[in-house]
Amino acid sequence: MWNAADRTGKAAPVLIVGSVALDTVETPLGREENALGGAAVYASVAASLFAPVNLVGVVGADFPREHLSFLTARGIDLRGLQVVEGRTFRWSGSYDYDLNQAHTRSTELNVFEDFHPRLPDTYRDAGFVFLANIDPDLQLEVLAQVRSPRLVVCDTMNFWIEGKPNQLREVIRRADIVFMNDAEARQFCGTFSLPRAARELMALGPTAVIIKKGEHGALLFTRASHFSAPSYPMEQVVDPTGAGDTFAGGFVGYVAGTGDISEGSLRKATVYGSVVASLNIEDFSINRLRRLTPEDVSRRYAEFKSIAFFEAMESA
Amino acid sequence: MWNAADRTGKAAPVLIVGSVALDTVETPLGREENALGGAAVYASVAASLFAPVNLVGVVGADFPREHLSFLTARGIDLRGLQVVEGRTFRWSGSYDYDLNQAHTRSTELNVFEDFHPRLPDTYRDAGFVFLANIDPDLQLEVLAQVRSPRLVVCDTMNFWIEGKPNQLREVIRRADIVFMNDAEARQFCGTFSLPRAARELMALGPTAVIIKKGEHGALLFTRASHFSAPSYPMEQVVDPTGAGDTFAGGFVGYVAGTGDISEGSLRKATVYGSVVASLNIEDFSINRLRRLTPEDVSRRYAEFKSIAFFEAMESA
Repeated sequence: MWNAADRTGKAAPVLIVGSVALDTVETPLGREENALGGAAVYASVAASLFAPVNLVGVVGADFPREHLSFLTARGIDLRGLQVVEGRTFRWSGSYDYDLNQAHTRSTELNVFEDFHPRLPDTYRDAGFVFLANIDPDLQLEVLAQVRSPRLVVCDTMNFWIEGKPNQLREVIRRADIVFMNDAEARQFCGTFSLPRAARELMALGPTAVIIKKGEHGALLFTRASHFSAPSYPMEQVVDPTGAGDTFAGGFVGYVAGTGDISEGSLRKATVYGSVVASLNIEDFSINRLRRLTPEDVSRRYAEFKSIAFFEAMESA
Repeated sequence: MWNAADRTGKAAPVLIVGSVALDTVETPLGREENALGGAAVYASVAASLFAPVNLVGVVGADFPREHLSFLTARGIDLRGLQVVEGRTFRWSGSYDYDLNQAHTRSTELNVFEDFHPRLPDTYRDAGFVFLANIDPDLQLEVLAQVRSPRLVVCDTMNFWIEGKPNQLREVIRRADIVFMNDAEARQFCGTFSLPRAARELMALGPTAVIIKKGEHGALLFTRASHFSAPSYPMEQVVDPTGAGDTFAGGFVGYVAGTGDISEGSLRKATVYGSVVASLNIEDFSINRLRRLTPEDVSRRYAEFKSIAFFEAMESA
């Protein structure tokens, strides 16, 4: 078992806001009902491998206590998680054989309909903030409550690109690092060229853009250069839900855990994010991360290094 | 300009069989009529950057002499290219905005209908053989004429997977390295898992499988390990025609040029293939390769190294 306290005791905490959900998911390999899910949960559990986490979100009175205990045991502070009357946010979806595209069956906003994030005072000094996928208006409400963050990272999805482009643009303006998948970046920027899309996003303010490409890896663009994280050929994907969230959570957790925001560190963080995401999709919900050991993470990271290697940087 | 003789004089020649064509191509960035094309041409021009090439194919009496002069000037031996009565093979196609999928408008087999490869005697001792995309029956006819090749590499396409699966299976049995794109490997093996597809292909005989993923890079599987070649984010793709052929041609040319078939060499060859393919799609037909300098190749290779780097292999 992963002992968060051993590894993350001295690291700066990451503030994470996003959905906390009960998911019903069907894939060709099985079905899971009312499982722990939501962008903030996936991201927080992933980040907690590297740094303490302060979670901001909302659940209903029906949210199982065991999930709260599990999150707390992972070093995730829940003082920012509101527990209110009503039902927890629920998502239900399925995946076909190719596992790349989620088909949403139903979304029940429930307690999310009237949610407004309220940060406990201790959260407001957060150095590292991750705005996981959620209504950009709520992402802005969080930013209004943090004092002077060192690094703001945001994620989003096509739903907000289409529905709230102006608010999303404002979030991006105030972020240091933006996560989008390739289709979203192309859609938001209206160009097929990913380098061009990344430049347009950086022109709004951020110093780095990370393009998520699912099974094909990820690209990290900075003003000075770009990095192509290796794609990890999966033997078997059980449930791709949360891949993007664990990727971003692992990334932010690694950066907060090391406190290093140099380009070299961002490259490693991109790989650690890929490592955690590739492990997460080996089981439903966050089940694979529940039984994860530090050795699992080190072993997969070493594998990423070995599959990417073709020539030492020193020689030409 | 690339001086093939300087670079490739001492290397073993590569025997390449495949189509020689006149292509009419329309992309969002323009249109080119009756341009030099065909799998064997793309592959040969790419391979000629690293090794001499012996070309096997057929053209009609209408094939422009200037193309023959150009190929000869690149160190490509044309004694295996039959020039016969009739019209050269013609392909016409277009690409949409996303440039990933070619839409075929017309295919005229012409002189290809009655083509049977005839290898000049000097070709029969070829050490390196590349069976570019062509009817698997013709690929087998070439293999029947070579004496004891050191390395046989084959490519194919969905058309033959559907139309001649048994003949294709026989080609794969006799090949050392198989190239397929991800969709083709999944289709041929009936599995979504690329590692599993690669294992099934290797079970037929080959010692390595290369999965082409277009803009997402490539995977090299051997019995012992796998390698994920970086995806190169293109600023602008002008014409993706021949990307797979130049990738494979660059790969085979590099291996023949070095004479090194170790796993380390196959990894570098995969990257050199990606380098040549990424350059080729910057212009129509093989126009970018016409004006390519050795420095262009070295520069792009160094760029692939730098975009893939995140941590030296020595440290953990």
